[in-house]
Amino acid sequence: MKALLLVAHGSRRQRSNDEVIELAQKLKAECADHYAIVQAAFLELADTLIPDGIKNCVNAGASQITVLPYFLNSGRHVTEDIPQDVENTRPNFPEVEIHIAEHIGASAAMIALLKAAAINHS
Amino acid sequence: MKALLLVAHGSRRQRSNDEVIELAQKLKAECADHYAIVQAAFLELADTLIPDGIKNCVNAGASQITVLPYFLNSGRHVTEDIPQDVENTRPNFPEVEIHIAEHIGASAAMIALLKAAAINHS
Repeated sequence: MKALLLVAHGSRRQRSNDEVIELAQKLKAECADHYAIVQAAFLELADTLIPDGIKNCVNAGASQITVLPYFLNSGRHVTEDIPQDVENTRPNFPEVEIHIAEHIGASAAMIALLKAAAINHS
Repeated sequence: MKALLLVAHGSRRQRSNDEVIELAQKLKAECADHYAIVQAAFLELADTLIPDGIKNCVNAGASQITVLPYFLNSGRHVTEDIPQDVENTRPNFPEVEIHIAEHIGASAAMIALLKAAAINHS
């Protein structure tokens, strides 16, 4: 069973974290054909950190987990911190495949999204 | 003449800032029909802060500037810091209209982008 774990930075502002949780819920509806489980987790400052997010997916029955970093830039969080958290958690679930997808800022669709946002306000 | 100012957080890591500058250059090619000027600026930690970004657009001939926050969440940076920088700069250019667009995390296209990124890795 496949799981998608949307990983955001996390904020001291609960409303920001709630936005990510709501986004994961919308994404669950959109990706139901591909992922039976869609959850949110955070790198820091918020409930459900990455290790707990992975654990929750496994407890829900996941045998394969895609970690999708909800980050715009390839900074330290994307290149070091998220991979480190995943590597530290992996030995706890040796039977589960865990992949890290590219951060969304690297998405080819980002230019189209920015163009739409810009033109909407031109 | 219309200008688009793509505003990112800014990073101590120059490569992250360069990614934003490259994104603004790509966006310039895509939005040429709507914006004669497309530039990048940063909230902090990087060269070309918001006041300088606005000034550069005006010097390039802008009479109308759309500030597009390249941020995912409606945290303090989006709700307070960027508006504050814009308000502080506005009196220097009373003849220029400056609008702040919604941060890109609020874009309706974000779900589609996430879905594509997720399915690409499923």
